[in-house]
Amino acid sequence: MTLITLNAGSSSLKFALFEARRPPRLVLRGEVSRLDEAPELLLRAADGRELARGALAPAGAGAGGQAAALGVALEALRRAAPEAMAQVRAVGHRIVHGGRDFAAPTLLDDEAMRALEALIPFAPLHQPHNLAAVRAARAAFPEAAQVGCFDTAFHRGRPFVAETYALPREWHARGVLRYGFHGLNYEHIARTLAREAPELARGRVVAAHLGAGASACAIRGGRSVASSMGFTALDGLVMATRCGQLDPGVVLHMIRAEGMSVDEVEALLYKRSGLLGLSGLSGDMRRLLAPDAPAQAREAVAHFALRARREIAALAAEMGGIDALVFTGGVGERSAPVRAMICEDLAFLGVALDKEANAAGAARIGAPGARVQTLVIHADEESVIADAAARLCAMAKG
Amino acid sequence: MTLITLNAGSSSLKFALFEARRPPRLVLRGEVSRLDEAPELLLRAADGRELARGALAPAGAGAGGQAAALGVALEALRRAAPEAMAQVRAVGHRIVHGGRDFAAPTLLDDEAMRALEALIPFAPLHQPHNLAAVRAARAAFPEAAQVGCFDTAFHRGRPFVAETYALPREWHARGVLRYGFHGLNYEHIARTLAREAPELARGRVVAAHLGAGASACAIRGGRSVASSMGFTALDGLVMATRCGQLDPGVVLHMIRAEGMSVDEVEALLYKRSGLLGLSGLSGDMRRLLAPDAPAQAREAVAHFALRARREIAALAAEMGGIDALVFTGGVGERSAPVRAMICEDLAFLGVALDKEANAAGAARIGAPGARVQTLVIHADEESVIADAAARLCAMAKG
Repeated sequence: MTLITLNAGSSSLKFALFEARRPPRLVLRGEVSRLDEAPELLLRAADGRELARGALAPAGAGAGGQAAALGVALEALRRAAPEAMAQVRAVGHRIVHGGRDFAAPTLLDDEAMRALEALIPFAPLHQPHNLAAVRAARAAFPEAAQVGCFDTAFHRGRPFVAETYALPREWHARGVLRYGFHGLNYEHIARTLAREAPELARGRVVAAHLGAGASACAIRGGRSVASSMGFTALDGLVMATRCGQLDPGVVLHMIRAEGMSVDEVEALLYKRSGLLGLSGLSGDMRRLLAPDAPAQAREAVAHFALRARREIAALAAEMGGIDALVFTGGVGERSAPVRAMICEDLAFLGVALDKEANAAGAARIGAPGARVQTLVIHADEESVIADAAARLCAMAKG
Repeated sequence: MTLITLNAGSSSLKFALFEARRPPRLVLRGEVSRLDEAPELLLRAADGRELARGALAPAGAGAGGQAAALGVALEALRRAAPEAMAQVRAVGHRIVHGGRDFAAPTLLDDEAMRALEALIPFAPLHQPHNLAAVRAARAAFPEAAQVGCFDTAFHRGRPFVAETYALPREWHARGVLRYGFHGLNYEHIARTLAREAPELARGRVVAAHLGAGASACAIRGGRSVASSMGFTALDGLVMATRCGQLDPGVVLHMIRAEGMSVDEVEALLYKRSGLLGLSGLSGDMRRLLAPDAPAQAREAVAHFALRARREIAALAAEMGGIDALVFTGGVGERSAPVRAMICEDLAFLGVALDKEANAAGAARIGAPGARVQTLVIHADEESVIADAAARLCAMAKG
């Protein structure tokens, strides 16, 4: 028996094929990227070896794009592993928004799909792609269990005082609250710590998920206490093209004094801000860190690090201090200079890096004797989704 | 020679009369409050003794209201101190927004007034009242120097990386940046520390200005490093009726999904949020702390303290830790329980309160031996304005 995981973004579809054991075992993984421009397929073996790569005919973004991308992905998987693909019993989906009710992985029946569609206004740029992938996967595997795994779920269960904004109370009841995102990877980090550093897993951890999207999360005893992201995936840390923390008065100013429409403001804050906007060059940290990058790129990186440092300390305050700091996500895992810049002024929290371990990209990068452990943990949403899909598929069969 | 200070709010005018020495000496102070409903005059001697109190005929808010309020204030001052009022040589004004250019107190000639009028879109709820008071004072004292003192000025001079939002760079050039406010009182705090605790004044201080408006400021070596308020006076800490920090996506959601106008969102975020919105009861901390206050009031106060604690730690991170924490403003000065709640989980910063000193409202409330000094300093914008007015008036005469 096997299962598939799908992670559908606005212009990409990441997929993986697992044997449906506990824990699931990765067989193949891949991505159909650049859906909206020049689609490209990449397929890798479990050990990372490249099995296939190629350009595809454009199919457009949106629901049609996701269905076409899934077709390409399934064809590649079938060619590489025909027997495993004949035994798919479950498809696990990353879904950005589970609202207040979806606090755990869920079998996606018609009722669940209706509830998730009602959340589209809360995540208009992400939720529709996720749901399009579910519908395409249902059509491709009508007998398989479709399992939804939510980026908000790990953050549910916080008390009202931590979860609310300082708005009239009816807004909380109407669903305007601090949801938090990147929960599948934070779940993965909490599990990894529980397995490999149980003394830290019982303590107070700030995890910084630094990728194209970026957030940080305060985790105590394996549970989310607070996150830098709130109602949308826009707030908090500076991201590749998203602004992160912004005075709400700026939005009012852009609309009233600058005459922008809500759509224009949204496009500006999601797609043209962050590292890209500040550098005027790129949202890709590697380009900004290149030796020949201009001064504006250095300023963008310095601002990114400043805001991350600030947010790590703020999250520490929600737990009365920290025992461990975890870096994860593409930038968090691969960029030693960015980790060093963020930690530079965090000695007052007890954070101290071992320069060599940090430069070498070790799993433990804290200085010997530092009060706070500093770790690098590779992001892995797929294993969390696969685990949930295997579990719910077994339950569904009784 | 004497001078007058004016602090014009949306529904009040605070005023004071000083002898124009260096430092200036307070003679009388007072307030015309509740301009938009049932105006009231209060006049006090320098020692706080009440000299006059009385209801007035309504004059309305706005420019007319400020002019009428100034008339009432001047009449009361003339009755109480006719000789001093015959020698007024300067009027010092608190002005909320000095934009990027007004980094110090300034003589308000026609050119300066035009520049300040151009900043009205940046502070539409406050700037017009401030400027109305200037025009009324010019008419009343055509021979006196009119001196503008700016709540943004103390925060000017930060590097681009600290001052910018992560927006495309042209937005910074267009004036969308982290201004910070409450600068006159932070200036007062920096001066008080320099006088009374010079070793702290040279160090790293977070000052928490907690009143109907609330912000916190990181001050190093007497200069502002960062503030919880940014582009407008809406961001950062929870306030009496303002929301403080809010995901910009919430504003987009309110307009698009909830169909609200920009004016409606603005009114909601400035006037019906914060402690008032969360408690459903009041924006007045004293009412929320009353023994018979309902659970919702306790939640509002707990949320207020949580967000303040978080922001203090974030500001500490911008300086690599702190040497002193200062409370100021109505709530910061008078509410021992709120100070205690905020400091509860800040031991990791080195903050520890002396319970009895805190309950007694002492000037130094830190526990003996605590690494960080915790102080209470009474807010005093008037003395900073009076000092600037005396100085510029002397300079103007050559």
